[in-house]
Amino acid sequence: MLIVQKYGGSSVADPERIRAVAEHIVRTHEKGDQVVVVVSAMGKTTDELLRLAREVSPQAYGREMDMLLTAGERISMALLCMAMIDMGVHAVSFTGSQAGIVTDTVHGMAKILEVKGDRIREVLAGNGVAVVAGFQGISTDKAITTLGRGGSDTTAVALATSLGAQVCEIYTDVPGVFSADPRLVPEARKLERVSYEEMLEMAATGGRVLALRSVEFARNYSVAVHVRSSFTWEQGTWVLEEDPKMEQAIISGVTHDESDAKVTIAHVPDRPGVAALMFRALADESVNVDMIVQNVSTAGHTDISFTVPREDLGRALKVVEKLSSGIEASGVTHDEGVARISLVGAGMRTNPGVAAKMFEVLAAEDVNIEMISTSSIRISCVIQEIDVQKAVRALHSAFDLDKGD
Amino acid sequence: MLIVQKYGGSSVADPERIRAVAEHIVRTHEKGDQVVVVVSAMGKTTDELLRLAREVSPQAYGREMDMLLTAGERISMALLCMAMIDMGVHAVSFTGSQAGIVTDTVHGMAKILEVKGDRIREVLAGNGVAVVAGFQGISTDKAITTLGRGGSDTTAVALATSLGAQVCEIYTDVPGVFSADPRLVPEARKLERVSYEEMLEMAATGGRVLALRSVEFARNYSVAVHVRSSFTWEQGTWVLEEDPKMEQAIISGVTHDESDAKVTIAHVPDRPGVAALMFRALADESVNVDMIVQNVSTAGHTDISFTVPREDLGRALKVVEKLSSGIEASGVTHDEGVARISLVGAGMRTNPGVAAKMFEVLAAEDVNIEMISTSSIRISCVIQEIDVQKAVRALHSAFDLDKGD
Repeated sequence: MLIVQKYGGSSVADPERIRAVAEHIVRTHEKGDQVVVVVSAMGKTTDELLRLAREVSPQAYGREMDMLLTAGERISMALLCMAMIDMGVHAVSFTGSQAGIVTDTVHGMAKILEVKGDRIREVLAGNGVAVVAGFQGISTDKAITTLGRGGSDTTAVALATSLGAQVCEIYTDVPGVFSADPRLVPEARKLERVSYEEMLEMAATGGRVLALRSVEFARNYSVAVHVRSSFTWEQGTWVLEEDPKMEQAIISGVTHDESDAKVTIAHVPDRPGVAALMFRALADESVNVDMIVQNVSTAGHTDISFTVPREDLGRALKVVEKLSSGIEASGVTHDEGVARISLVGAGMRTNPGVAAKMFEVLAAEDVNIEMISTSSIRISCVIQEIDVQKAVRALHSAFDLDKGD
Repeated sequence: MLIVQKYGGSSVADPERIRAVAEHIVRTHEKGDQVVVVVSAMGKTTDELLRLAREVSPQAYGREMDMLLTAGERISMALLCMAMIDMGVHAVSFTGSQAGIVTDTVHGMAKILEVKGDRIREVLAGNGVAVVAGFQGISTDKAITTLGRGGSDTTAVALATSLGAQVCEIYTDVPGVFSADPRLVPEARKLERVSYEEMLEMAATGGRVLALRSVEFARNYSVAVHVRSSFTWEQGTWVLEEDPKMEQAIISGVTHDESDAKVTIAHVPDRPGVAALMFRALADESVNVDMIVQNVSTAGHTDISFTVPREDLGRALKVVEKLSSGIEASGVTHDEGVARISLVGAGMRTNPGVAAKMFEVLAAEDVNIEMISTSSIRISCVIQEIDVQKAVRALHSAFDLDKGD
């Protein structure tokens, strides 16, 4: 069996952890499986490199920033190989470039175009373990690129696809995907399996276990992903195709996200093209707009609210304030104290009334709902950040998420 | 004019130093010169990476060690480019591999076979500054290699040669090459110029300013090297061809080296092949033998002494003790408390009596000479380490090295 194992930064944070990870890989290898390892930078290395960059230059320059950050995986993968060689295993490390991970030319957020992997296959053919730097590749114009936050997960899934691996194991510092954040809800339960769609919704709404893009990649190529702990090595959560033979849980989990800010443009003339004008201008400034809500029109005017990552708020306000006078809106307000809570579950499709119950539970807790958005398997509400803990706990309990599948 | 500037680890030890170096490069560039920069890892980065490697694995594995250590230059060169871009200069960093520095396959001590430099030339043609990682290359079998300690100097000289640079500036934390170590001899004088041959002898006998291999390279290709300080930016020492029109100083400098140990094999039968057997066995164990002295034979037997780096002493003793019974030597002794002091000067060739005066000076200071070796422009004596300071000071003064050219 060919397995791709990915280890995050906390899994290889220090020499002791690196040796523990090496032992686990060697055990897997000795069982007769072929193993390709993807590794992130050690612990806080990336943050430390970012701090150095900020001290040297106030601006971030894409090409050089990528050159800088990719030093991190180089260190962790070389150390991991040394530990394995020490245990008698033929381990060979490869940079993204050496592994043939070809990307587009967007520095800091490159997309993988192709995975060649010839040198990895050579190592596997020689009964060795190949260790590949996560998060990085080489662009079509031969510059070093990075894939953005969570990029190592994407590297792992892309390698699993191109090498035809049977499973992609994502090792992290939590035992799997939970029905809610266990720091907020002590009764939160580890899920045995979730579908790609549920995982996508969770990743998009604050579930930090897997990066969104890696889940998209896994879904597109049907890669079986197993999220598990490199501290306890216990069975974790499988992310798989939805199994039509199984009855789906109505709700799989409650997620929350406290990284957004809300912007409201009041009294916007309700005529075609106004929203398009606004959101094109925001997109041109690379502002990541998340939820958008437009109220029904009253007397030819409406209010438009949207959420953006807090770090984009400054740019968003600049764009919106510039436009609001031109479109004769009455004013722009913003709130950085908001949060988003979401219910995610594939069974929601066939169970009406989930939204109603969610609103009732929040009302009973005296939590005001400021914005609502839904997909076929998710309902999200924007609330005040100070209400997050009681809201998540109440929903987790009301939907019996502590009770098991 | 095309200038190659190399900055050592202390020159780029922190963000403030990196910005100071960037400013100097930008000033040079604005004067109209083309600049290619070679940079070492920041401050103690390499030592820190070596420490991590030791904690992960007791052994050093060549390929992975090189992968690990090359992360250091990646960080410093990216930061240096960011600082320059911030100052409005088009700066682009290149790894050894990207710069086309092709080496043999000896990990940890690779030799440069070829410098392609196409991408560097492209940046220069676009009025940019190219920054190249020192100390590293890509082997003929496509693995990352390092050139050994001081390898960044070699990278700089090799680039200067292949790009046809008019001068190779080596920036360091001292103002140039001195007539003796200023920490030992406060009157030590900065030399305005030394010949390649003198610099080679100094580098080989403890003068730590330039790495031996980079001087060999510079001599073979007649690259003008200017060793100077990145802290004061003052004029330093030029390393050039010997100028036959100038009268050579008899002695240019006194060097000392306290990193060796001495091994003596007593009462060795004086027959052909014994020394060959011994030093072949040492070479096979990669023991770096430096000075070798064999006394005249007495009654068919002789003593052989040699010096080795202290870290090689264990291996050297193992080899020698195993052989000594086979060749019927009476025993092996060793001494880790020795040091080597050397007088270097091109004028020595035409001035007899330098050796005699050196021995007289040492005798007057009551310093015992244990071994002697000479070249046409150098005399070295092995003495006890505790005598180094008084020996170096006495020689510096006796040969008027504080008096100027």
